[in-house]
Amino acid sequence: MARIAILGASGYTGAELLRLTATHPGLDVAALTADRRAGAAMAEVFPHLRALDLPRLTRIEDVDWSGVDLAFCALPHATTQEVVKALPASLKVVDLSADFRLRDPAVYAEWYGHEHLAPELQQAAVYGLTEFNREEIRAARLTAGTGCNAAAGIYAVIPLLRAGVVDPDDIVIDLKTGVSGAGRAAKEATLYTEIAEGVHAYNVGRHRHTAEFDQEFSRAAGREVRCTFVPHLVPANRGILATVYVRGEAPAIHAALAEAYADEPFVVTLPLGEAPHTRHVRGSNYVHVSVVADRRPGRVMVFAALDNLMKGASGQAMQNANLMLGLPETQGLTAAPMFP
Amino acid sequence: MARIAILGASGYTGAELLRLTATHPGLDVAALTADRRAGAAMAEVFPHLRALDLPRLTRIEDVDWSGVDLAFCALPHATTQEVVKALPASLKVVDLSADFRLRDPAVYAEWYGHEHLAPELQQAAVYGLTEFNREEIRAARLTAGTGCNAAAGIYAVIPLLRAGVVDPDDIVIDLKTGVSGAGRAAKEATLYTEIAEGVHAYNVGRHRHTAEFDQEFSRAAGREVRCTFVPHLVPANRGILATVYVRGEAPAIHAALAEAYADEPFVVTLPLGEAPHTRHVRGSNYVHVSVVADRRPGRVMVFAALDNLMKGASGQAMQNANLMLGLPETQGLTAAPMFP
Amino acid sequence: MARIAILGASGYTGAELLRLTATHPGLDVAALTADRRAGAAMAEVFPHLRALDLPRLTRIEDVDWSGVDLAFCALPHATTQEVVKALPASLKVVDLSADFRLRDPAVYAEWYGHEHLAPELQQAAVYGLTEFNREEIRAARLTAGTGCNAAAGIYAVIPLLRAGVVDPDDIVIDLKTGVSGAGRAAKEATLYTEIAEGVHAYNVGRHRHTAEFDQEFSRAAGREVRCTFVPHLVPANRGILATVYVRGEAPAIHAALAEAYADEPFVVTLPLGEAPHTRHVRGSNYVHVSVVADRRPGRVMVFAALDNLMKGASGQAMQNANLMLGLPETQGLTAAPMFP
Amino acid sequence: MARIAILGASGYTGAELLRLTATHPGLDVAALTADRRAGAAMAEVFPHLRALDLPRLTRIEDVDWSGVDLAFCALPHATTQEVVKALPASLKVVDLSADFRLRDPAVYAEWYGHEHLAPELQQAAVYGLTEFNREEIRAARLTAGTGCNAAAGIYAVIPLLRAGVVDPDDIVIDLKTGVSGAGRAAKEATLYTEIAEGVHAYNVGRHRHTAEFDQEFSRAAGREVRCTFVPHLVPANRGILATVYVRGEAPAIHAALAEAYADEPFVVTLPLGEAPHTRHVRGSNYVHVSVVADRRPGRVMVFAALDNLMKGASGQAMQNANLMLGLPETQGLTAAPMFP
Repeated sequence: MARIAILGASGYTGAELLRLTATHPGLDVAALTADRRAGAAMAEVFPHLRALDLPRLTRIEDVDWSGVDLAFCALPHATTQEVVKALPASLKVVDLSADFRLRDPAVYAEWYGHEHLAPELQQAAVYGLTEFNREEIRAARLTAGTGCNAAAGIYAVIPLLRAGVVDPDDIVIDLKTGVSGAGRAAKEATLYTEIAEGVHAYNVGRHRHTAEFDQEFSRAAGREVRCTFVPHLVPANRGILATVYVRGEAPAIHAALAEAYADEPFVVTLPLGEAPHTRHVRGSNYVHVSVVADRRPGRVMVFAALDNLMKGASGQAMQNANLMLGLPETQGLTAAPMFP
Repeated sequence: MARIAILGASGYTGAELLRLTATHPGLDVAALTADRRAGAAMAEVFPHLRALDLPRLTRIEDVDWSGVDLAFCALPHATTQEVVKALPASLKVVDLSADFRLRDPAVYAEWYGHEHLAPELQQAAVYGLTEFNREEIRAARLTAGTGCNAAAGIYAVIPLLRAGVVDPDDIVIDLKTGVSGAGRAAKEATLYTEIAEGVHAYNVGRHRHTAEFDQEFSRAAGREVRCTFVPHLVPANRGILATVYVRGEAPAIHAALAEAYADEPFVVTLPLGEAPHTRHVRGSNYVHVSVVADRRPGRVMVFAALDNLMKGASGQAMQNANLMLGLPETQGLTAAPMFP
Repeated sequence: MARIAILGASGYTGAELLRLTATHPGLDVAALTADRRAGAAMAEVFPHLRALDLPRLTRIEDVDWSGVDLAFCALPHATTQEVVKALPASLKVVDLSADFRLRDPAVYAEWYGHEHLAPELQQAAVYGLTEFNREEIRAARLTAGTGCNAAAGIYAVIPLLRAGVVDPDDIVIDLKTGVSGAGRAAKEATLYTEIAEGVHAYNVGRHRHTAEFDQEFSRAAGREVRCTFVPHLVPANRGILATVYVRGEAPAIHAALAEAYADEPFVVTLPLGEAPHTRHVRGSNYVHVSVVADRRPGRVMVFAALDNLMKGASGQAMQNANLMLGLPETQGLTAAPMFP
Repeated sequence: MARIAILGASGYTGAELLRLTATHPGLDVAALTADRRAGAAMAEVFPHLRALDLPRLTRIEDVDWSGVDLAFCALPHATTQEVVKALPASLKVVDLSADFRLRDPAVYAEWYGHEHLAPELQQAAVYGLTEFNREEIRAARLTAGTGCNAAAGIYAVIPLLRAGVVDPDDIVIDLKTGVSGAGRAAKEATLYTEIAEGVHAYNVGRHRHTAEFDQEFSRAAGREVRCTFVPHLVPANRGILATVYVRGEAPAIHAALAEAYADEPFVVTLPLGEAPHTRHVRGSNYVHVSVVADRRPGRVMVFAALDNLMKGASGQAMQNANLMLGLPETQGLTAAPMFP
């Protein structure tokens, strides 16, 4: 049994990691931290986890790291850099924050508004999209979880850039995301009354996950790629749907996706012409990608649907942790989606 | 007092028209029809209308047309053609179906799969987007309500094509719509359990409202225009948000919208850089349009938000009926949006 | 035109009052206050009110009270007492907080945990349930808006106690309420993610509106009455459904309600055996009450459905303000419910 | 590996059974039937199950029963009786319909409106609430799944009647249920637009699950017990909350529940004074029961929360199948609830 700790266990991604441990045969939960809730039982913070046998929440400085093999770090942006820097070097780390996603310190500073506090770690971190960096992740000490929106766009686009079947200068990502991505912090903007029964775009043209698209798309294309990205908030707890408008030929695009994901356990390419629902991946680690031709020749829509708390965050993190710990990659992750 | 009839009063658009009559000082409801519910009181079909003093539902053939000035026709597609053809020629008609939206019979046949049954009426009908066809509507005998999705896209795009500030060959409309647009008929696809807590695209690249974009965009541009259009269903009773990706300069695009709608009572141009919420027009006849520049030069997002049952259907119909009846255009339509 | 001010216009009940003024022919909005948002336009705080011509938000101390006839006070509990005490004696006040609902200062102190700061006003205030205190409200200087939950229970029960058709010692009120009653303050407990897709009871057996039941039920029965009251939160923006379990005979109970509300413009008694939906009063000032006999002889369910922001708060306040200002009681309040 | 068939696999309970098989190590899916969808792949009927390796849908008459150990029967009421009667006698059957819940044929006929078509099976069937009938279920050939509402009420009440700590003549069950219990058939009443954003009571005082309360409560009390039961529909896919009003003393009631469920793997008794959320059992086989004292001496509220598709239907069925097949009772059922 590998022994894990979860830092920041009082947020939604922390809770989701714990949910996954309930049916994971290879992990033992050694420590859970949440500074403001230190001393509390998880059942007080998340009553849905009441049936699990879990340690009480502690403060990070009170964790005994001997015997912990891997830490999931689900802390806020910026805080994370200082915390991870202070962890024992022997500890493997799967981070779920934004702090280690961008390899270039200048790009980080531009999008996040301050110098990085652990630039050496930033450069050592592996970008955690398993399907594209599997071997590096297996060998990594520190994996950076991707942005949940970024993950959705990347699953739709990277194989197309690699295969050279779309125009890299004309990619528009219109994304619809559920609310849990905003976390559990109390904010007026994510009250039920402000979200239910409507839809709106936010951070239009300047969402921070755009920087991940720039980095990963450019890497895949072997040249600089800049896309247009507009996220929208929809009244759903979970789920991200990326609708990507590209130029190319639908059959070639579909073939590129199908080939790229042919052996992937969690990425399903739907038949050409179908469009995915976020409901059909809810609660699972699956991604559904698909392709539909527009009526206009040369215009194609590519879709990707995933659960932001799973493949967009905690499921992805668990998949990477399995690799880093030498466990079977899909262990604890094969639950089917929950519908309705 | 003008006397109106509503044909097809047992659907959502019929009910919405009745809701509007409750505070409309100039209208008297003379007749309500619903073939399958003939004989029923409206309170049985729509308990929320219980407090209104309304005639019982009848069959169309039992309506006494003498003394009826205007009929709202909220019947299904195709049926409508035959019904409207049989109405007294002296009766003004505001249709809410798809039957009279497309002026070209060949285009109609292509998108709807059969020859039009009343081609002479089809050509006489005025496309009911008040802001662009006000004087023709005032003089019309028959007004064709627009598709609710079409309305949203048109408010965002027509002024831009007229002003020549966008590239007409690169317009992508990504639209998110609430569920009431699908009507009250029992279908598996619109059950609560199939819609709640998720999002998906439907009729991708082949939604019938596309034909309205073709017709109206081409007319506005003075040349053939074909856009890409993908609608998505979101879990909300009401509301449509059109996110339109265009090429041009944001300030010029914003100016074109602001100028086009400067004197319009129901179309509000938000400050440059803001994005609208469907919640902020819910239940009202208002449209919020806005413009945000992308980080990529020459790329711009244009938004339009409206309530599909109001400005997208029954509110638009009432606004047109006011014009056709010589009543003040905004009468009965100035209620503020309902939020939350 | 009567001139009104709204104190606390940045909350949901303040916004709802403003929504009502949009179609109210007899009111002029003279001042709007919100201390933390002073200086802002209402469109910044509530974009759905953008189309209304409204004064900017100010601080209370900056309001010029000369020429203001009536103030709606939509401030938090406790603050209200001090604010209202300081208002000009000539100003009529309709309060929407909990501060003046309980006539007995000892009861107030018991339920709210501190001595009342304006006990003389507390005793002068009229409990604002229009149907039961119409003449006192007409003559009042200060009207106390009822608790929204309390309103729902009271509409179902008071006529039964007055008519003596139920056992006053066996009243159980199981209530389901929407989320907007919790206000716009950012709280973890009312985030979308914490509310959507589930239901739970809160403040079980100790909700503060219980004190209003005690006061009003005892007054109606002419003896002490104590009921059981359990509120539940359901995922809906608006709406309260009270399911009240009583002992008595259904026909007599139905007759008591029907008679009590026969001439009321906003309270509708449904036919015996029907049960109301909150959706059917949404956005309106209507209350639907109804009665269903249990299969067990002598057991009866009584229902009341209303919109918590309307008849449970701002609609009720407007109805009372109309009376206090000598305007027609229903002015600005006759909009039909919005469904769906 | 035990081999199972699912009859009626195109409905929600059938899909939920399949979801459970994905992580169940002891079951092999041998056959899936759905008469109207025979020939289809499950991915066409339920795209969320696309990643599972499942047989195509067939018609019941085409199933080869040799080698099938147990059939889950998720067919509509009445049809079920005829189907089960025709199944091989060697086949174990876990039924999820209403057909075998009521032991007394006269009671069945009274509540369901027709004579039972398989009265001998009706009497042999074991009522499938595992916690109360574990040994009989282990030995049964045919287990009758309980009503989902009935299950919720029974978990709250049976231990209290057995322990004699409540007045059996004064039990009121006010229940709130999600929409998936109504199934996947297209009905106007369960459209998104008819359900979202509101709450209402249905089948007031005459819901068929009442007959299960009568049967099981009377059995537990050793005398005739008749309760009052009112179900309400809330906008949620899953979840049932039963709020039960009883007379007794809270500590004794809490002790009775805690003792009854002390060794149960899926029933959790919350600390005295807490109230459960349906969200906290979503997607899992857990039941949360709890007790809160009313302010009125001798009055107590008892709560039970469960997921109607899990412990209220398919999870319960799987738990019983495990027993009938000699597998570990909790196998495939230990997934933690999904929140948010």
